[in-house]
Amino acid sequence: MTGQEIKEMDLQYNLHSWAKQGSLHPMVITKAEGIYLWDSDGKRYMDMSSELVNSNVGHGNRDIIEAIKKQADLFCFLSPAFALEPRAKLAKMVIDRMPDTMGKVFFTNGGADANENAIKIARMYTGRHKIMSRYRSYHGSSFGAGNITGEPRRYALEPGIPGFVKFFDPYVYREAVSFASEEEATRFYITKLREQVQYEGPDSIAAIVMETVTGSNGIIIPPKGYLPGVRKICDDYGIMMICDEVMGGWCRTGKMFAFENFDVKPDIVSFAKGITCGYVQLGGVAVSKKIAAFFDDHVLSCGLTYSGHPLACAAGIACLNYYDTAHILEHVNEVGAVLGEIEEGLKEKHACVGDVRYIGLWSAIELVKDKATKEALVPYGKDPDGVMSAIIKKLLAKGFFTYSHENIIMVAPPLIITEEQLREAMAIMDDVLCEVDAMIAL
Amino acid sequence: MTGQEIKEMDLQYNLHSWAKQGSLHPMVITKAEGIYLWDSDGKRYMDMSSELVNSNVGHGNRDIIEAIKKQADLFCFLSPAFALEPRAKLAKMVIDRMPDTMGKVFFTNGGADANENAIKIARMYTGRHKIMSRYRSYHGSSFGAGNITGEPRRYALEPGIPGFVKFFDPYVYREAVSFASEEEATRFYITKLREQVQYEGPDSIAAIVMETVTGSNGIIIPPKGYLPGVRKICDDYGIMMICDEVMGGWCRTGKMFAFENFDVKPDIVSFAKGITCGYVQLGGVAVSKKIAAFFDDHVLSCGLTYSGHPLACAAGIACLNYYDTAHILEHVNEVGAVLGEIEEGLKEKHACVGDVRYIGLWSAIELVKDKATKEALVPYGKDPDGVMSAIIKKLLAKGFFTYSHENIIMVAPPLIITEEQLREAMAIMDDVLCEVDAMIAL
Ligand SMILES: Cc1ncc(COP(=O)(O)O)c(C=O)c1O
Ligand SMILES: Cc1ncc(COP(=O)(O)O)c(C=O)c1O
Repeated sequence: MTGQEIKEMDLQYNLHSWAKQGSLHPMVITKAEGIYLWDSDGKRYMDMSSELVNSNVGHGNRDIIEAIKKQADLFCFLSPAFALEPRAKLAKMVIDRMPDTMGKVFFTNGGADANENAIKIARMYTGRHKIMSRYRSYHGSSFGAGNITGEPRRYALEPGIPGFVKFFDPYVYREAVSFASEEEATRFYITKLREQVQYEGPDSIAAIVMETVTGSNGIIIPPKGYLPGVRKICDDYGIMMICDEVMGGWCRTGKMFAFENFDVKPDIVSFAKGITCGYVQLGGVAVSKKIAAFFDDHVLSCGLTYSGHPLACAAGIACLNYYDTAHILEHVNEVGAVLGEIEEGLKEKHACVGDVRYIGLWSAIELVKDKATKEALVPYGKDPDGVMSAIIKKLLAKGFFTYSHENIIMVAPPLIITEEQLREAMAIMDDVLCEVDAMIAL
Repeated sequence: MTGQEIKEMDLQYNLHSWAKQGSLHPMVITKAEGIYLWDSDGKRYMDMSSELVNSNVGHGNRDIIEAIKKQADLFCFLSPAFALEPRAKLAKMVIDRMPDTMGKVFFTNGGADANENAIKIARMYTGRHKIMSRYRSYHGSSFGAGNITGEPRRYALEPGIPGFVKFFDPYVYREAVSFASEEEATRFYITKLREQVQYEGPDSIAAIVMETVTGSNGIIIPPKGYLPGVRKICDDYGIMMICDEVMGGWCRTGKMFAFENFDVKPDIVSFAKGITCGYVQLGGVAVSKKIAAFFDDHVLSCGLTYSGHPLACAAGIACLNYYDTAHILEHVNEVGAVLGEIEEGLKEKHACVGDVRYIGLWSAIELVKDKATKEALVPYGKDPDGVMSAIIKKLLAKGFFTYSHENIIMVAPPLIITEEQLREAMAIMDDVLCEVDAMIAL
């Protein structure tokens, strides 16, 4: 099929996510290799968002592809009730990479259903029903995951589930007060959270769910001591601490899991994306040994046809092995340091860059009209003049593929990107930011 | 790994669905081909439930495996935002197989998220929030799909979502009144449903969701005229009719979709399982042209990372093509007729068989202590003496793999089963039912 035919058939028969279908102009992609994508006209792009921040090892990874082919010849699918080699092995590999307090895994197909099961498990284990989560967060679009999501993508799910309560995230850059230090910020946020927990009634709260580092909503990195502070509140009141590592897990931050950066051990960890990099869909929930033991004699009321799909598990095994053999963690730390330096430079240089936030190879460039007032380049929830989409298009025209959220540009390349490729890409970013500077100077 | 090693690793690291983990003895399966499974001791079983009624084409289908391998070499995953050949093609193939009123598809990973999105879409389209569904139904285990589920697997999701309302299904065999005819039964159920819709407030009801034929809860086939009656209620009040075809779709009933047996066109169809037979996980929602057009200028507030996963779409294309080239529909009708005959014979012969229900190659054998009183072989929600699991084990020992639900044994073999294989399997069933007869005679 030609590019035009694919596009027409796509638009005639497919519904696309989060969009008015009448105004879509999807790119037709026909080839992908390493950090590169090619459209049907043969134009090449650097995949600077790793698709939806899931393509950690890039495209065309031979180890994973061969593992898929080998498993496909054995069996693609067998029921979750059976004991199967790929599922058993991958579950062990997941737990081996977690803190020694963790016990067992329940596998799902993606991030939303990982979170659905995480909160179900917390409710069953504690016998409590309230779930606390944060406003600037995305946890998925199904009713459970969407109701813990704090941003507008949850509105279609309202009236929501009773007992789902929101609190504010530690978005220091845009806080209405300014803090003398990270420690002061932490004191502020943790005090407010403890207060809210007390007012909600701690005995009714099953879990506090957080993206360890908030992803889609702008790489919001918690200040020092914040996560241990949450951990303490959870311990004080018997609340389960759930870390959503769907985007941040699996080497993205330079650690296997984002929470390792903050010296904290969650009770429940949800994951997806980087466990297979999307080669086959896979997600899951890891639970502590304590929780796992509880379900020895309590029914685990969770289940889905494709829990622990063998083909997905085979891809997962190959993917986790690849992280090790290709020394991805070391590489992320090296190249991530370069990314940080470059972004600090962009912030210094460009009038339009209000803030840059980065950890490992995961970063956000927050655009403003004015550095002093921090007025966002586009108002919250709106982009009436298409300013942000115009910036994304400019990057794209120069071969830099990524996406934006509100006034924020995501930079989260595949973890295999070389320093040279990264510098090449960020030079494009630099150019485009010059244009944005010119625009806001008008 | 040896079978023992797989089993131990599985039990140490995996959480299994719907079970107390401490009492599990999973079978270790190491090989699967056609309608057969082999355990690690080399013992062969007939897969008489098609795994979870999803393995319609059986195991090891070369067409699907080759399609997966070919797509894996091209690209395994690319974002839902792009236009991609396998996704565009499969969406067209799905719509081509639906009534001419249907317009577009939104792809998901499985059945639960298909239903999540079906009810979201109905709410967005109608601007109403109530969702009606039936007690004896299973629609998935995430919060949305689980809250439309009527049976006990939803309890872990309560307190539930406001506005989710249940009504009773047309379970004629166990109704408290007896009906002179199918038409009378239909009149009864449709009158009650209309009454309930009026009392709920029709203007607040977004959708009525039904499994076209209730699957897991016992192959409950609606009486003649029932579904057109529901269609009429939906039309009268602007309510979306959602048919969950996750288990019943894709040739299982001898038609491409179960609703074709009942002369009715839904507004929204959720599907999963048979579209890929689980070779790669895939589900989706098809919506009418009218609904599709609505989203031309309204935001579709749905999205998941793996929507329309290319590897899954490639498997789906090969699978739908296989249904055609292997003349699966014709075959299901031929062999399905034999299954019906055999089951009628079992009902006549065995004191323990209260009812048999079958359509295509999808059937249930309902066991009773007494045919006259219809007292179920085990009380609802309980099996304190492990009677049903003992029956399933007897079948298994003789090479017949399936599962039970309450007092019901599922018989839903892969659609490629030959008449000879079916007769061989059902002879085993006959033997085991003799033992059950003897047991209840005591
Ligand atoms: C932190 C986080 N959690 C959950 C999800 C949902 O995952 P999925 O899209 O696989 O349902 C996402 C998706 O981007 C995410 O970023
Ligand atoms: C009718 C029906 N709907 C939905 C589901 C849920 O599908 P999944 O297990 O893929 O989430 C099932 C699963 O058995 C089903 O039978």
